[in-house]
Amino acid sequence: MKFVLILSLIALFLCSHLSLSFSIDPIEPSNLLPRPLILQYTSSIEEPSDSTLTQLRCDSWRFAVEANNLAPWRVVPTECGPYVRDYVTGLPYKFDLEMVARESLNHARTVEIKGDGMDAWIFDIDETLLSNLPYYTSHGYGLELFNAHEFDIWVEKAIAPAIESSLILYEEVRALGFKIFLLTGRSEGHNNVTIENLKRAGFLHWDKLILRGPNDKGKTATTYKSEKRREIEEEGYRIHGNSGDQWSDLLGYSVSSRSFKLPNPMYFIP
Amino acid sequence: MKFVLILSLIALFLCSHLSLSFSIDPIEPSNLLPRPLILQYTSSIEEPSDSTLTQLRCDSWRFAVEANNLAPWRVVPTECGPYVRDYVTGLPYKFDLEMVARESLNHARTVEIKGDGMDAWIFDIDETLLSNLPYYTSHGYGLELFNAHEFDIWVEKAIAPAIESSLILYEEVRALGFKIFLLTGRSEGHNNVTIENLKRAGFLHWDKLILRGPNDKGKTATTYKSEKRREIEEEGYRIHGNSGDQWSDLLGYSVSSRSFKLPNPMYFIP
Repeated sequence: MKFVLILSLIALFLCSHLSLSFSIDPIEPSNLLPRPLILQYTSSIEEPSDSTLTQLRCDSWRFAVEANNLAPWRVVPTECGPYVRDYVTGLPYKFDLEMVARESLNHARTVEIKGDGMDAWIFDIDETLLSNLPYYTSHGYGLELFNAHEFDIWVEKAIAPAIESSLILYEEVRALGFKIFLLTGRSEGHNNVTIENLKRAGFLHWDKLILRGPNDKGKTATTYKSEKRREIEEEGYRIHGNSGDQWSDLLGYSVSSRSFKLPNPMYFIP
Repeated sequence: MKFVLILSLIALFLCSHLSLSFSIDPIEPSNLLPRPLILQYTSSIEEPSDSTLTQLRCDSWRFAVEANNLAPWRVVPTECGPYVRDYVTGLPYKFDLEMVARESLNHARTVEIKGDGMDAWIFDIDETLLSNLPYYTSHGYGLELFNAHEFDIWVEKAIAPAIESSLILYEEVRALGFKIFLLTGRSEGHNNVTIENLKRAGFLHWDKLILRGPNDKGKTATTYKSEKRREIEEEGYRIHGNSGDQWSDLLGYSVSSRSFKLPNPMYFIP
């Protein structure tokens, strides 16, 4: 009985004093009542409108994307098309990009650069250094199924702009003394246009640009990039940072001591 | 000149036809003008209000938390206190929890259960199965520095409610035939109150409850949980799913074939 009393008092305190929008139900222990103790949201929360529901569902979908909770996905859910468009063309994407650049730089500054030229930072290219937003703008911001042929035509134009916060980070990381590895899922056939685009966008110096070779065909990005990171490690480099917009840039083996996930709700690469 | 013309036309098309809120600047290649091609947001975006800026910054902070971009953090940023309170006590947290439960169950259903009793799913406990929200409600929702003594008093009350979507997932995963491992950072001294709390909250059956023993003291959660997962694997189990609210529940070695990150903007465990 004493326990029931304490529980009741706690529940009373929580409900009355703190104006919670959830309740603990029930207030008696389950050996007295069969109903379990469950975190519940009371009906005091107003019934959300359809647009609020869409916003909530798309927010949750984006959280699931960025926390790597989703199975491979092919296109943005139809109802989230406008949501993704507003996100990537508005301030939220810009703020998210700036935050991850800031955290990356904070980490880079804590690394003790040994002076032997073996302290490395890896950058992915697309949606990490270069933005393909102009392409996706005319392809539904991820609502359309990826079209490799059309995307290749875009890539060969070599006019993808830099993500500004990434360009600043890139220069700072380089100035700190890191060796810069660019590790991209682009194929070696795109070597020249990639260099052309990088330079046009302001990325002027790097130590190694790694593209998919003939032996990398058919491999998942996770496998291909892990293999390349292992090779970098085997050459004696210490990988202190890895920046990418896909989890497949960051996970696998030979992972960096810190990885930085840039936002990307437009497409998924396994 | 032809290239300049094409670029100009593309830029014109993008700016006029698609009403973009960003522009590509400049439209000439960098060998003609020194300014690089950078993704920029035009001044056509209205200057956001202070409350919008706080919302944007806290949204970005929460994205960084959930994408594992932050260095170890001790407390919620002061300006994000109200934001985190509104998130965890409102619909967004509930929606995020339900989404991750749904994705987890979708994955669980794709697993071929071998019938040898060796298909396993791991659940963390706090903020994964049980909610300590009533405790954090009276401790600033993460604004206050973690107080191990006060938290222990709360844990020993054994009244943490179930996260409803996790309870449903838990029962479904169990019904599919998975062996259930509960892997918690709680210490063995809390074995009995943990069992009492789990049962009271409706978690009635599991196969093994693993708590921190004397040999696990001082280890990071990542190390402790990786060691325990390796032991589970060495016993012959196949770990198909792992649910936790901390990246330290999910990363390290002997990682599950799929991991599910539940949201938690209130605290960080390394």
